[in-house]
Amino acid sequence: MIPEAIQRFISAFSRLPSMGPRQAGRLAFFLTSLDKATREELERALHVLGTMDRCGECFFVKQQDAAACSICSDRTRTEAVLAIVEKETDLLTFEKMGAFRGKYLVLGKLAERGILEPAQKLRLEHLKQTIRKRDALLEELIIALNPNSIGDFTADFIAREFKDLAKKITRLGRGIPTGGEIEFADDATLAHAFERRS
Amino acid sequence: MIPEAIQRFISAFSRLPSMGPRQAGRLAFFLTSLDKATREELERALHVLGTMDRCGECFFVKQQDAAACSICSDRTRTEAVLAIVEKETDLLTFEKMGAFRGKYLVLGKLAERGILEPAQKLRLEHLKQTIRKRDALLEELIIALNPNSIGDFTADFIAREFKDLAKKITRLGRGIPTGGEIEFADDATLAHAFERRS
Repeated sequence: MIPEAIQRFISAFSRLPSMGPRQAGRLAFFLTSLDKATREELERALHVLGTMDRCGECFFVKQQDAAACSICSDRTRTEAVLAIVEKETDLLTFEKMGAFRGKYLVLGKLAERGILEPAQKLRLEHLKQTIRKRDALLEELIIALNPNSIGDFTADFIAREFKDLAKKITRLGRGIPTGGEIEFADDATLAHAFERRS
Repeated sequence: MIPEAIQRFISAFSRLPSMGPRQAGRLAFFLTSLDKATREELERALHVLGTMDRCGECFFVKQQDAAACSICSDRTRTEAVLAIVEKETDLLTFEKMGAFRGKYLVLGKLAERGILEPAQKLRLEHLKQTIRKRDALLEELIIALNPNSIGDFTADFIAREFKDLAKKITRLGRGIPTGGEIEFADDATLAHAFERRS
């Protein structure tokens, strides 16, 4: 009943995150209604993602033919401060803020059970080796994981692992979001904000 | 800062329905983490959508090389009953139900202002011509639009336009959804259910 091309699109695209069969179906019909040029632009945009690779230092994406990603190869950034983030999009959010001029380690999406995957442990191990090869410890290691139970659990683990490799290990401040209202803060947020008053 | 291939993907895909720049960004990074074979499968699935065309009778999608869509070319379906639906996905939902063995007209997404676009008027006009060319009126025209103000407004308009072309013009029943609870029905739904009690 459903045309084969549509069916094929749905089964391929509904495996993507935050895309169920319903959304994939709607998308398929929308795409058939587009003109050829627009659809080909989407095809090409999808295709060129294949030219991306992973940076061997920070594990952010990089161009396949580049030695390292644009951040790791930026000499104006300091190696002495490093932020561990979960996702590439977290890194981009940091970059948009603009105040951070150190390096990163992208850890990769944390599993819901809070146990690091072998690939994630390897990334941390790689960072340890890199620091050990230098003459100096990190001035500061910022563990910038989400402030929830899995993020906290993982941050505790990382802090223990790196305690001899950084002079200072910090986490992001917690409290009431700027522009937020005390009245609407949940208990945990308010308790953190109260504790960290200054 | 954002690699060009990622940026290009975001700007192309964030124009799709229910896909903002944030979701497109997350999708882009997810796609770079896929193996080549999976990514190529997605590329091909997107590409073959280009082989789809629109059926000249009901305006559902059809294979480019087919004369009509699989429904219009199905001789076991009756021409005497026709359902007007808004979207292709509405048609598929009807087909999944299985009880309907007539034909369709896909009208296309209704504008929020409730005014039919020229292309939609042409589709209705095409259907009128098709019925006029036959010896007989439609036995039944089912106007299967969503039960909201724009759907109702459009259904009223269509009912007037087709009043001389169908023996019976019907709309979908309204009431409390099967499995739903009276307590949670909103006023309009309960009023409809009460009015249409039987």
